[in-house]
Amino acid sequence: MSSSNLNSVNGLVIGLVNGNRRALARAITHIENNTDFAQPLLAALYPRAGSAHILGITGAPGTGKSTLVNGLAAEYRQRGLTVGIIAVDPTSPFSGGALLGDRVRMRDLAGDPGVFIRSMATRGSLGGLAQATADVVMLLDAAGFDRVIIETVGVGQSEVEVASTAHTTVVVEAPGLGDEVQAIKAGILEIADVFAVNKADRDGADRTIMALTMMLNLGVPEKHRIMHHGRLLPVEIPEHSPDLEAWIPPIITTVATQQQGVPVLVNAVESHRLYLEQSGNLQLRERFRAATALRMILRDSLLEQLLDAAGPEIINQVVHDVAARRVDPYTAVRQLINHHFS
Amino acid sequence: MSSSNLNSVNGLVIGLVNGNRRALARAITHIENNTDFAQPLLAALYPRAGSAHILGITGAPGTGKSTLVNGLAAEYRQRGLTVGIIAVDPTSPFSGGALLGDRVRMRDLAGDPGVFIRSMATRGSLGGLAQATADVVMLLDAAGFDRVIIETVGVGQSEVEVASTAHTTVVVEAPGLGDEVQAIKAGILEIADVFAVNKADRDGADRTIMALTMMLNLGVPEKHRIMHHGRLLPVEIPEHSPDLEAWIPPIITTVATQQQGVPVLVNAVESHRLYLEQSGNLQLRERFRAATALRMILRDSLLEQLLDAAGPEIINQVVHDVAARRVDPYTAVRQLINHHFS
Repeated sequence: MSSSNLNSVNGLVIGLVNGNRRALARAITHIENNTDFAQPLLAALYPRAGSAHILGITGAPGTGKSTLVNGLAAEYRQRGLTVGIIAVDPTSPFSGGALLGDRVRMRDLAGDPGVFIRSMATRGSLGGLAQATADVVMLLDAAGFDRVIIETVGVGQSEVEVASTAHTTVVVEAPGLGDEVQAIKAGILEIADVFAVNKADRDGADRTIMALTMMLNLGVPEKHRIMHHGRLLPVEIPEHSPDLEAWIPPIITTVATQQQGVPVLVNAVESHRLYLEQSGNLQLRERFRAATALRMILRDSLLEQLLDAAGPEIINQVVHDVAARRVDPYTAVRQLINHHFS
Repeated sequence: MSSSNLNSVNGLVIGLVNGNRRALARAITHIENNTDFAQPLLAALYPRAGSAHILGITGAPGTGKSTLVNGLAAEYRQRGLTVGIIAVDPTSPFSGGALLGDRVRMRDLAGDPGVFIRSMATRGSLGGLAQATADVVMLLDAAGFDRVIIETVGVGQSEVEVASTAHTTVVVEAPGLGDEVQAIKAGILEIADVFAVNKADRDGADRTIMALTMMLNLGVPEKHRIMHHGRLLPVEIPEHSPDLEAWIPPIITTVATQQQGVPVLVNAVESHRLYLEQSGNLQLRERFRAATALRMILRDSLLEQLLDAAGPEIINQVVHDVAARRVDPYTAVRQLINHHFS
C-alpha cells in the first residue's frame, strides 16, 4: 500500500482493517486531534468493530498496574491472541508523562506485531477523555485486535466513566498503600468484575485479601452496577433474570514482576467473558456502552451548539455576570437555553 | 428559630446565613438530592457568597491527605478562622465509605462550632459531582466560613474539575508511593499552587522534593494553567500581565501526624491568597470558576432537555441501534439533535 492512500479517510479505513500499523496510528491521531477526518473515520469503522473483548484495568498509583498490564499482554500473546493497549494518563499535553510511559513499556513488548500500545493524554473527542478512549478502543477493535486493554491511572469519577467502556474491569489492589485505599475499595466494588491483589509477596497482602472478601460479602448486585454506569440514558434491564446476580468477582493474587499469578488472572478474565456471553449480559453491557457513548457525545455536542448559537460575546457577558454574582449560574443557564435553544 | 422554618426555602436561607447548623445541613441535603428546593436555594444564596477563600487539597491515596486536612483546620482555628471541609469521595451511595471517613475525622474536630465537615458521595446537581461540590462550597461560603477546604481522593480528570472550583490548590505528595506517582506529578503541575510533601520523616522524602523541584523548573506558565481549566468557555486573559507568571508554587514539607510543618503550609496558602488579591488574579480565577460552573451546568441541562424532547422510546431505540452497530454514536447524536433541537 502506498503511503499516499493514508491521506484519505477511505485509505485509512482500508489500511487499518488490513493490519497496516501506520494507518492505525494515523487514524488514532485524527481522533485525538479531532480533525475533519475523525468523525468520517469513526462512522466508517464503527460497523466493523464489535469482536474484541475489552478489559479495563484500574487501581491506585503504586499498585503495579503497568507491570501487570505488560504481564497480561505477554500471557495473551502466549495464548496466540493479539492485544491492543491504551494507557489513559491524566498527565497533560504540556508534559512528557505519557510518552515516557510508552517508552518504558516498549522495552518489554517491542517488536511484537501482535501488540499495539498507545497512551492517551488528550481529550480531543466530543465527550472528553472517556469518549476519546472509547473511540480509540473502537479503532483497535476494528483493526482486529482480539483483546483491548484500557489502563487507567488513579481512582475517581473518570475511572468509572472509562470502566463503562470495558466488558471486564479488573481492579488492582496492593498491600500497604495507606488507609484511604480502604475507602476507595468500597466505591470500586461496583465496577470490579475481577480483583487482582498485586505485590502479593509483600506484608499485609492477607489483610488486603480479607478486606476485599469482606466487602464482597456485603455485595453489590450486578443490576446496581449496571444502573450506576448508565444513569442518564435508559437501558431496559430484564426483570427476574437469575443470571444477573450470578457473577461474583474473584480475587486473584499476583506478583506481576515475576509473572506470578498472571495466567490465573487471564483465566479469570476469560471466564468472565464466557459468563457475559452465556448469560446474555454481554448484550446488556453493549447497550450500556452505547448509552454511555451517546450520553457523553450528546452532552458535549449540545454544549458546542449552544455556545455557537449564543456567540462568544454573549457567553463572555454571562461569565462576567456570574463571576460578579449578579446572577447565579443555574438561572444564567436557564436564560441562555431559553434565548438560544427554543 | 423554630424547626418548622427549615421546611421553606426562605427559612433555610435565613437559618443558614445566621449560622444555624441544621439549616446548613438540610440545605446541603437538598443540593445533594437535587430536590425542588435546590435551585431556589442556590439562586437565593449565590449573591451572599464570595467572601470565603477556597482551598483544594488533592493527591494520591496514601499521602496522608485527610490527616493534613485535619491539621490545616486545627491551625486555622488557632488563628481564629472558621473552616468548612468537604471530602469529595468517589465511593458510592451504596457503600458506607463516605460516612466512615466522616466518623474518623469527627474524633479530632468534634464539638468545635467553628468547623463543619461534610462528605460528598452523590452527584445530585446538574453538572455532576464537580458541580455538586461547587454548590456545597457556595453554601459554606454563604454560611460565613472563612476558609472552605475541598479534599479530593485520587488523582484524575475529576480532580482537575474539582480543583477548578478552588482558589488555592494544594497538591499532597509522599515518599515511596511507587513509580507512577512520578507520572502523575507531571499532570498536576498545572493545578498545583502549593506542594506539600507529607510524611517527610520517611525515607525517600529528599527524592520526592528533588523530583518536584525539577518539574517546577520545567515550568508551566500560569496562563496555561488557567486555560487548561476553562477550556470550553471563553475567559479573556489579559496580555502582557507580568503578574501572571509571578507565582512559583512553594514546596512545603510536613509530618501531618505531628502537626509538623502545618503552620508553614497555612502560611503558604495565605501568601497565595494575598498574591491572588494583589495581582488581580483573584478576579481572573473567579471568572474561571464561573465559566466552569456554567459549562458543567449547561452541558447537563441541555442533555436533560434533549432527552425530555426526544422521549424515552426514541432514546431507547437509538441506544439499541448503536449497540447493534446499525449506526455510529456520532451520527446518531447528529440525527437526534437535528430532529429535536432545531
